Amino acid sequence: MALPTAFDKYRPVFEADLKASIGDRDLFLYDMLRYHMGWVDERGRPTNGSWGKGLRPMMCLLACEAIGGDWRKALPAAVALELVHNFSLIHDDIQDGDKERRHRATVWYLWGRAQAINAGDSLKGLGTLTLLQRGVDNHPPEKLFAAVEALEKACLEMIEGQYLDISYEKRASTTIDEYLDMVSKKTGALMECSFYLGALLGSDVPETIERFQRCGRDLGLVFQIRDDILGVWGKEEATGKPIAADIKRKKKCLPVVYALQAAGGPDRKVLRRLYGKRTTSDGEVEEILDILARLDAGSYCQTMAQEYRDRALRELEGVELSPSMQSDLEQLADFLLEREH
Amino acid sequence: MALPTAFDKYRPVFEADLKASIGDRDLFLYDMLRYHMGWVDERGRPTNGSWGKGLRPMMCLLACEAIGGDWRKALPAAVALELVHNFSLIHDDIQDGDKERRHRATVWYLWGRAQAINAGDSLKGLGTLTLLQRGVDNHPPEKLFAAVEALEKACLEMIEGQYLDISYEKRASTTIDEYLDMVSKKTGALMECSFYLGALLGSDVPETIERFQRCGRDLGLVFQIRDDILGVWGKEEATGKPIAADIKRKKKCLPVVYALQAAGGPDRKVLRRLYGKRTTSDGEVEEILDILARLDAGSYCQTMAQEYRDRALRELEGVELSPSMQSDLEQLADFLLEREH
Repeated sequence: MALPTAFDKYRPVFEADLKASIGDRDLFLYDMLRYHMGWVDERGRPTNGSWGKGLRPMMCLLACEAIGGDWRKALPAAVALELVHNFSLIHDDIQDGDKERRHRATVWYLWGRAQAINAGDSLKGLGTLTLLQRGVDNHPPEKLFAAVEALEKACLEMIEGQYLDISYEKRASTTIDEYLDMVSKKTGALMECSFYLGALLGSDVPETIERFQRCGRDLGLVFQIRDDILGVWGKEEATGKPIAADIKRKKKCLPVVYALQAAGGPDRKVLRRLYGKRTTSDGEVEEILDILARLDAGSYCQTMAQEYRDRALRELEGVELSPSMQSDLEQLADFLLEREH
Repeated sequence: MALPTAFDKYRPVFEADLKASIGDRDLFLYDMLRYHMGWVDERGRPTNGSWGKGLRPMMCLLACEAIGGDWRKALPAAVALELVHNFSLIHDDIQDGDKERRHRATVWYLWGRAQAINAGDSLKGLGTLTLLQRGVDNHPPEKLFAAVEALEKACLEMIEGQYLDISYEKRASTTIDEYLDMVSKKTGALMECSFYLGALLGSDVPETIERFQRCGRDLGLVFQIRDDILGVWGKEEATGKPIAADIKRKKKCLPVVYALQAAGGPDRKVLRRLYGKRTTSDGEVEEILDILARLDAGSYCQTMAQEYRDRALRELEGVELSPSMQSDLEQLADFLLEREH
């Protein structure tokens, strides 16, 4: 699955703007951010690495161009989205105790939890400041206001989702509705915001903006459900995570949420018992995977992701799009649905 | 030392607005915030407690009224300042591993570090949102923009100060200039912002606004230096902290920064050795206090605080103030200089 071709056009311009958002600030705190973004190694020396897929900013720019806007005017929003997303990753790694991300040591693992909290906090601040300061020249104040407010609201909703995710870990079971509410906040809110900001900065038609907004939320669910599938069945060389990583960590991912609900008496009992244990042996992981296989949990999840993908694209049927943009949006939706990493 | 009389007028109105900023949001995450603010106990039941001195919001409202503005129009900024300050306290408690604040268990100690990170993150978000959403009716967009930008910049500077503070803990010595740079960021930035926002929302005269801004930064230094004095010599029943708390924790507070620089050969050697140790016995704390006493470190610090207090008030000499407001501002400066808690 390839990403939309428009992304190749956005990427170099976006990357330069993203780097400029941290600029030449010389406190080592900002080197920690540059390290997290993949631009320098842990001693501050430049790397050849890059910062990940940048899905949210690319989505923002695509939405802007798709409705006939000048995607360059959405760059401050795109940069802000990527900074805010990475703020959440730095804090997430502390919260989950993850020692690695993208095959490199995490910020907290290198510099301690206390400074990693500061790193995340500063990245969030830079995000809001970037949108405020760099967006101000290109847009009327009311629009920029709506943009900053939307970013802050999405960020707050994302934190609520993160709160729910962690609180679910301690519960014996979670319903599918509770799961969907949680991921809609944790992942959907910022993806919705990405499409919303792009559309807002490229269009003055409220209905169009709202359609992109709803489409973005649905694509967020596609992304997260596929992420959950990869967290259980993804290949280590593609995802960078060990096989069945989310099972070993007892995440209430969709395959397990579904299985806990769909499994019959004995399987449910085994699943509950194994998921309630502190540690899980390789044999026990196998046992869980067997139960998921018997219930065809993978197909269940992929079908649900497909439904959200279809609903997302239906939202845009009421919007006039050029054929190439229509095709890029479909390609994005398909990438989110079928990606292997 | 009493607080300015104007604070009594602001307090009830401000408290109601502060509570409204969290409103009736019903996720337990927000009960964690209400708990931190002192409004409910750990099970969500209302308490009679209140949220602390609220110095920053009170300063904001006082600055606004002092220059002839309507202090009620500065309420959204005052609320935002208090939320942002409390965001920093929640994260600070995690970073320092403090189990108690204001005689109650800290958020992380009750609900774990992961959820406390979320609590702090959400409080910061609510701060920015409050200023944006509640400030929008009373002020022209340019002014509100400047206000949000100032808040975000101050917050980023505060995080830089927090970063420096933690990084200093690992160093053998810190110069007085480094100390002043650190506290000017950690504490001065948000106090400067409090006076700046109050003045900005009450005046259109740039020079007046800048004078209050500089005055606020200096008062922040007065506050922090006095805080450092209380952290070494404060009375437990007044401060709520054990005697010599900052010595036991090896904080690079001003009395110690000064002593490490001023002490002669043997004292310096002892001080360095004791400050380099992981734990400190009561006898060793006594030894450190004896060295500080020989160097008259307390007087040194109090004199420095006095100098910042004088400079702060000199800034305002160029601003026309009513006698009662002049008196309230002096009372504020004296309170910061001489407070016992």
